[in-house]
Amino acid sequence: MPDASPSGGPLEPGLTIGILGGGQLGRMLASAAARLGFDVAILDPEPDAPAGRVAAHTIVAAYDDPQGLAALAACADIVTYEFENVPAAAVARLAEMGVEVAPGPLALRVAQDRLEEKSFLNAHGAPTVAFAAADTAQAAVAAAEQLGAPCLMKTRREGYDGKGQRWVEHAADAAAAFQALGGVPVILEAAAAFVRELSVIAARGRDGATAIYPLTENHHEGGVLRRSIAPARAAPALADQAERIAARVLAGLDYVGVIGIELFEMADGSLLVNEIAPRVHNTGHWTQDGCEVDQFEQHIRAVAGWPLGPTAAIARVEMLNLLGDEVEGWRRYAAEPETRLHLYGKRDAKPGRKMGHVNRVKPL
Amino acid sequence: MPDASPSGGPLEPGLTIGILGGGQLGRMLASAAARLGFDVAILDPEPDAPAGRVAAHTIVAAYDDPQGLAALAACADIVTYEFENVPAAAVARLAEMGVEVAPGPLALRVAQDRLEEKSFLNAHGAPTVAFAAADTAQAAVAAAEQLGAPCLMKTRREGYDGKGQRWVEHAADAAAAFQALGGVPVILEAAAAFVRELSVIAARGRDGATAIYPLTENHHEGGVLRRSIAPARAAPALADQAERIAARVLAGLDYVGVIGIELFEMADGSLLVNEIAPRVHNTGHWTQDGCEVDQFEQHIRAVAGWPLGPTAAIARVEMLNLLGDEVEGWRRYAAEPETRLHLYGKRDAKPGRKMGHVNRVKPL
Repeated sequence: MPDASPSGGPLEPGLTIGILGGGQLGRMLASAAARLGFDVAILDPEPDAPAGRVAAHTIVAAYDDPQGLAALAACADIVTYEFENVPAAAVARLAEMGVEVAPGPLALRVAQDRLEEKSFLNAHGAPTVAFAAADTAQAAVAAAEQLGAPCLMKTRREGYDGKGQRWVEHAADAAAAFQALGGVPVILEAAAAFVRELSVIAARGRDGATAIYPLTENHHEGGVLRRSIAPARAAPALADQAERIAARVLAGLDYVGVIGIELFEMADGSLLVNEIAPRVHNTGHWTQDGCEVDQFEQHIRAVAGWPLGPTAAIARVEMLNLLGDEVEGWRRYAAEPETRLHLYGKRDAKPGRKMGHVNRVKPL
Repeated sequence: MPDASPSGGPLEPGLTIGILGGGQLGRMLASAAARLGFDVAILDPEPDAPAGRVAAHTIVAAYDDPQGLAALAACADIVTYEFENVPAAAVARLAEMGVEVAPGPLALRVAQDRLEEKSFLNAHGAPTVAFAAADTAQAAVAAAEQLGAPCLMKTRREGYDGKGQRWVEHAADAAAAFQALGGVPVILEAAAAFVRELSVIAARGRDGATAIYPLTENHHEGGVLRRSIAPARAAPALADQAERIAARVLAGLDYVGVIGIELFEMADGSLLVNEIAPRVHNTGHWTQDGCEVDQFEQHIRAVAGWPLGPTAAIARVEMLNLLGDEVEGWRRYAAEPETRLHLYGKRDAKPGRKMGHVNRVKPL
């Protein structure tokens, strides 16, 4: 195998893909990369991270640790990430050392700040619920009055799986909610009277080509994804609408990689974007057993500058997350002929922790 | 996750599966094990072996090195292998240290000696070509006269992919062939006037349950597998015959794991067994993209004492080996929507070396 990638050309098999983050998404990305002949280097602050155990190189360091980043730059020909809260400084540092990070800085900046995110989406023809930002308790009350209560207050930065947010039942409660969230800058979102939660997993290659998976229907519990069904039953007009939104978001971000776009289906048949995640996404796990090329291989193809793979569904899949000690159900799932089991190798089944998932596969 | 496997019960996710051999088969086994939540430990004499780069633990040592085996025993809860020439002493040593090896010693012994293999097969109702053993040049000539020339001389031990064998055109040539093969014990096989080469990949669990994949049609060049097509077009009677043979071999060996059984289809519609390989098999690579549970996950399920998975084909697959610099064709294959690419991460594309394979997938 050649030992260098031609400038601007696709990354050659045998080269090394670095991944910031060693959780289950990093683990599944690493396995997909290995299948395509790449080596993988994982950087994660935790020793014994799930992805580190399936990778050629593991660097245990904080994401902003200069030595850790230097070690990653020394072995990786390109770097990607499994979560959107990668420090911007880390990406800048890698760029200084000559290592490109994909998806790029714009996608990270937009995804790390809910105000930037919603502003970007609206500016690019991807509608969202009405929203307003607030940096003080007083401004939060004013924002809640403007939007109408109940509304949802979220910290602008951080927060995932329902963390860092709370409902404001009456506008006057917004001050207390603001304090409860830590007194940090927040965004308030009008309640979305959605009839269904959907998502679309999409990819964009280095050449600007896009590939969009069929719509997924999602069911959350306590802010955490419990179950997805894909392809979601959807009229062609709804699917078209989702594809248009995905294409706009991908082009607007000049994106390279797989993105997860969470959607609300409204009673009038319109779609609003709830949020975007610049990475492989839990609601795309069904593609592992429902598509010829899953989201993990697709992401590796995209960041490596390879052609994107097909995204058509070859089966109908119900994806079920195994949270905390639900993972003990592996014996039962392993015995179900239609069920494919994906376990993450996490040592400690803390309550609510994502330990694995199953895909129950049915003919289309 | 519990940190110990109940005695006699299935191996719990989170425990460690050891694999003797770090080539492409070990690599694909390791990825399958990781998907089911296991850690993997690879023992291979070569540093930087393909499987070591996707495993939690890598031990670089000769297969019979006591320290290496002790290191493997220290971290592995069960051990399997990716090639049949594992030294019997290594398996015995691991057993002494309390670590079970699956498939077991009988399968290895039978597969390591072509005379034992054919004798075993005939004794268990799995027909083969006529054969005779010879330990001297003189005996080789006599054997060739008895079988009739041309016939095929093979060393009893070692040899793979067409190595360690040669054709004897006239009985008198057998003495020279015997010397050319090193003067070691040999077996002579009557020429098989087969119409087609087939194989069947089968599995047997710890509970004695069996699962048999559809027949594969194989095309070799220079003794090396070039192409497989699966499921092979075959009348039900032929498939039944193959299943009966597989069931007898699995039961006769009290087998645990996946086995590859190479078959000759004769003009009269009968099947002869060419050879058996007590491991995942190149002719089973199509299952990665043609079945819900592939041979790699199936092998891990079997050795871990899990229930076996379904073996029905969900697609028609043409598998093509990428030998030597054919691997440079990855750009073309990556751009074919129907083609799934599997590269092994080997550093050096020596002529004829198995560097990867592609599965071209079509609807059933």
